[in-house]
Amino acid sequence: MVLKPQCIALSGGVGGAKLALGLSLELAADRLAVIVNTGDDFDHLGLRVCPDLDTLMYTLSGKSNQELGWGQAGETWSFLSALADLGGEDWFKLGDRDLATHVFRTQLLDGGATLTEVTQALLTALTVETTVLPMTDDRVATQIHCQSGETLAFQHYFVRDQCAPPISGVSFAGIDGARRSSRFSALLEGSEASSVIICPSNPFVSVAPILDLQDTWRRLCEQSGPVVAVSPIVAGMALKGPAAKMMRELDMPSTALAVAEFYQRVYPGLLNGFVIDHADRASADAVRQLGLEVLVTATVMKDVHDKQSLARDVLGFVADLTAS
Amino acid sequence: MVLKPQCIALSGGVGGAKLALGLSLELAADRLAVIVNTGDDFDHLGLRVCPDLDTLMYTLSGKSNQELGWGQAGETWSFLSALADLGGEDWFKLGDRDLATHVFRTQLLDGGATLTEVTQALLTALTVETTVLPMTDDRVATQIHCQSGETLAFQHYFVRDQCAPPISGVSFAGIDGARRSSRFSALLEGSEASSVIICPSNPFVSVAPILDLQDTWRRLCEQSGPVVAVSPIVAGMALKGPAAKMMRELDMPSTALAVAEFYQRVYPGLLNGFVIDHADRASADAVRQLGLEVLVTATVMKDVHDKQSLARDVLGFVADLTAS
Repeated sequence: MVLKPQCIALSGGVGGAKLALGLSLELAADRLAVIVNTGDDFDHLGLRVCPDLDTLMYTLSGKSNQELGWGQAGETWSFLSALADLGGEDWFKLGDRDLATHVFRTQLLDGGATLTEVTQALLTALTVETTVLPMTDDRVATQIHCQSGETLAFQHYFVRDQCAPPISGVSFAGIDGARRSSRFSALLEGSEASSVIICPSNPFVSVAPILDLQDTWRRLCEQSGPVVAVSPIVAGMALKGPAAKMMRELDMPSTALAVAEFYQRVYPGLLNGFVIDHADRASADAVRQLGLEVLVTATVMKDVHDKQSLARDVLGFVADLTAS
Repeated sequence: MVLKPQCIALSGGVGGAKLALGLSLELAADRLAVIVNTGDDFDHLGLRVCPDLDTLMYTLSGKSNQELGWGQAGETWSFLSALADLGGEDWFKLGDRDLATHVFRTQLLDGGATLTEVTQALLTALTVETTVLPMTDDRVATQIHCQSGETLAFQHYFVRDQCAPPISGVSFAGIDGARRSSRFSALLEGSEASSVIICPSNPFVSVAPILDLQDTWRRLCEQSGPVVAVSPIVAGMALKGPAAKMMRELDMPSTALAVAEFYQRVYPGLLNGFVIDHADRASADAVRQLGLEVLVTATVMKDVHDKQSLARDVLGFVADLTAS
């Protein structure tokens, strides 16, 4: 019998990776599986770049760049400088060390390996024991629909255009034909209870691609353990990324409550609990009125202690919901 | 009417690039075309690497690494270090800046550009005005046949195995189906006199692939100007690379005279003149007895003055042969 993980975490990039690191410090390696959004992935300069997977790998291996908030620590930039000298595209900031990941990945993918297999090879090389799985081995590409009528590939919106264009919506090209990676599907099988933790990632571009993949969100509902989400919005602001700006442009208030409302409206019955920051405790009752249990705690993760502390709080919340 | 270049130079990597730089300082940009061996090219880590073309480009643009004798000046090695950490292949020393060339080239090739077009784009970006052309836009791969019976791709022999395996021969995979690049063929057309200078490059693995491509060596014979070769062997030694070692293993003396004999035997009628170093002046008569005019001069190029001086001497030799 395959032991099911105690916890399935769904994650985008930076914010999700922080909580995933906390969870990895609280749970044995075989009791945690992190499912990562691949909608941000793109081919750039002939290389397959998987920003969210890389952020997870670098964060879990202790190699993440704390100053930049992305990429690897101790990074250098000679490649990008030389590429700019040649007139190449330098808007996506590929560091010299980071580039090794993309070259290594692209070479293995071109050789016929799946993204799941390549990710495992990278994790092994980086001595990360936590299970980290791409949501799919197929190509799904997040598209940002702008109020101007233009459609942008995600990284063009996010990095090249610095999230400046007001958006009217988001879609995921390829998602209708994409299938969960087989290891992700296997996690959803079987009878042992798993809880599901939706990390504090952007609901629209980081979590939705995972939930919208095949019948994933309904399969997550069927897990015997509870499903909880941690709000990526604290005091009306996204700690990282364009979530708050997107919410305003999509005619939602940029609040933790509105995140809970989004999940309840689009994925009814998925969530059992919702985690908000002390700064948003005034919204706790309103979230409860949506039919959700609420945990109010410190959700801003500045250092590893914050990450582990939030992970402990969320796991405690999950345990309470499981017992109730 | 297209002005024909005064001089067509055939070149491999380091030694050839040195004389090519000297020639570029002596001749107007539109009077020199350098044809470069592509038999050393290979796909590595999913990238197209063209060592001889790169050496030409870096040398002519003043970016070559004088200390290493290959690659770019001011190079850094973060990529290779990170790739080694991932367990990737790190025997071929790809610097971070150099990598930009390979990524840029591979991306353009994958987009349908020819190697000639990509090379021109790189030369333009590096502000090199000299015409530098790959011998072919097709794939030709130099194969080293070892006395052990093993066959090695050139870079595996040259870099990975440090030229250690004794060789029994050399062949060029793909050469039967390969065609000269159209710009190279155009250079060989028309009626205006061109002289041909075979740079001090390895006769077996750098010059032979160019001469063996289609009917190139016979077309070079038909040029109205003289054809001269500069010996890559000085005082029994190759200044760079395995030429001398190869000659011994192929049962030739490792001498300048034996280089001249090789050209006369394999490409009879091609050469009009041969350039040897002062150190080999005792062989001048023996070279003349092969039917070649001889220039004895200083052929060791340690600095730019040496390069320009040798270029001037060789061009004077060519002029004398033209007048005679």
